[in-house]
Amino acid sequence: MKVVSQPDEMKNLSRTLQRSGASIGLVPTMGALHDGHLSLLKRAQKLCDTSVISIFVNPAQFGPGEDLAQYPRPFEKDCELAEKNGCDIVFAPQPADMYPSSYQTLVEVEALGGKLCGRSRPTHFRGVATVVLKLFNIVMPQAAVFGQKDAQQAIILKRMVRDLNLSVRMEIAPTVRESDGLAMSSRNAYLTERERFEVPHIYQGLQYAGELYDKGEHNVARLRTAVMDLYNAAQTFTVEYFEMVDTERLEPVEAIDATTLIAGAFCTESSHTRLIDNIIVGGAI
Amino acid sequence: MKVVSQPDEMKNLSRTLQRSGASIGLVPTMGALHDGHLSLLKRAQKLCDTSVISIFVNPAQFGPGEDLAQYPRPFEKDCELAEKNGCDIVFAPQPADMYPSSYQTLVEVEALGGKLCGRSRPTHFRGVATVVLKLFNIVMPQAAVFGQKDAQQAIILKRMVRDLNLSVRMEIAPTVRESDGLAMSSRNAYLTERERFEVPHIYQGLQYAGELYDKGEHNVARLRTAVMDLYNAAQTFTVEYFEMVDTERLEPVEAIDATTLIAGAFCTESSHTRLIDNIIVGGAI
Repeated sequence: MKVVSQPDEMKNLSRTLQRSGASIGLVPTMGALHDGHLSLLKRAQKLCDTSVISIFVNPAQFGPGEDLAQYPRPFEKDCELAEKNGCDIVFAPQPADMYPSSYQTLVEVEALGGKLCGRSRPTHFRGVATVVLKLFNIVMPQAAVFGQKDAQQAIILKRMVRDLNLSVRMEIAPTVRESDGLAMSSRNAYLTERERFEVPHIYQGLQYAGELYDKGEHNVARLRTAVMDLYNAAQTFTVEYFEMVDTERLEPVEAIDATTLIAGAFCTESSHTRLIDNIIVGGAI
Repeated sequence: MKVVSQPDEMKNLSRTLQRSGASIGLVPTMGALHDGHLSLLKRAQKLCDTSVISIFVNPAQFGPGEDLAQYPRPFEKDCELAEKNGCDIVFAPQPADMYPSSYQTLVEVEALGGKLCGRSRPTHFRGVATVVLKLFNIVMPQAAVFGQKDAQQAIILKRMVRDLNLSVRMEIAPTVRESDGLAMSSRNAYLTERERFEVPHIYQGLQYAGELYDKGEHNVARLRTAVMDLYNAAQTFTVEYFEMVDTERLEPVEAIDATTLIAGAFCTESSHTRLIDNIIVGGAI
């Protein structure tokens, strides 16, 4: 497995691979790899000849007061995990090489970026879109794999790819969960023991919504009330938002009669960890 | 010569060309082709195997009240000119194919986009950066040629290419002028006879600044006063701005001791035509 840190070196490597006829599958990550990331890697390996995991804790997608400094960076362990799982290239650039001091170009997916998580993180998706476009231009992948756990991110990036006429095939892979249902996230490491015990309720609430939907309850107000009763009983976390939206515009729906994203963001009381999770009913993204 | 209007058809054509080993040189234009555009085509032909002129009056770079509707669109004449000058492909998409109703991704080169022309046209360069990035992703050129007449545009697009890790070689070709010095522009067609008679003073002022500079006058305040005396005497146009700025950040300089852009924007009184022109002293962009 190759580890590359310079963008230009990665670009040359990708160009050489393309010339040899090898397709490239990219898994963009911020490191602290877990089984969720590894499932994305597996998908990339299935789709393409060469697999690249990028590891970059992207400053542009953190707002003031967020956990940029604190975000885990177990780089050596990540490389071991990547190699053990058959990854061909780890691309791990330095912030100063991605954003030199004169840097000033930003990519914004306007309406979608302001919905759901965008309300509390107004510059987050601009940072995500910008860095992913840069990674696409550096790694030049034929396919890129993202997790459904970050559903809004996936929808925004697919919109960006269409809007900017990019040629990257966008693959969205299912959320990987702990045995108790908690969606895998590098941020789970922040949780206190007490919080960790209760946060599986997040997915239980989503599952409950899914069950009620399967049983024929398509009215969003009623679905929402049923789940919020459960969430409001939580001792260790509060609900930032819990919404049911269409998957094209992320606009709230009143009844579920097409593909619908049921998504929430939650904040734990003690460690102030922000967790997100979602399910999609009536279709897929 | 091929004329292509569908972005996906252009993309496929470019992909086929690349696979055959042919390099592509792109000249992005809004049509109404004149000798300035044709000089860019010539440069693209020198640099690359295949030349593409894109013709697209880009709504995203016009502000409210600007000349979007009025902008000349002599499409057949443009195609004849392109063909006569050995152009291989004209790519002329429709606005609805470039910006479908769900379109919402914008590219902004932040600080540079607000300087000079950006002060009176606050969304102009965002529109330019966005469409040029789209054209790059559709046409996939190895090189793209822009005119120095739109110096701020050239500097912003070069910044975008570096910031977004694009692989397009950016070529800036000299301004082509009418015999009396007026910079060629599709907008010159708007001028009244009286305006047309006087607007060559714009370039005369720039030349005067250049002569004074060559004779050793590097003080910007004095250079500016000398030229403004000339411009202020004009009967048919007023000065929107006349500035001397560095070519990296477009910040005003006090003395010319490095590559400096001497640039102005002018508005004619009767036809309300906005004209821009510039020279660069002490180096090149």
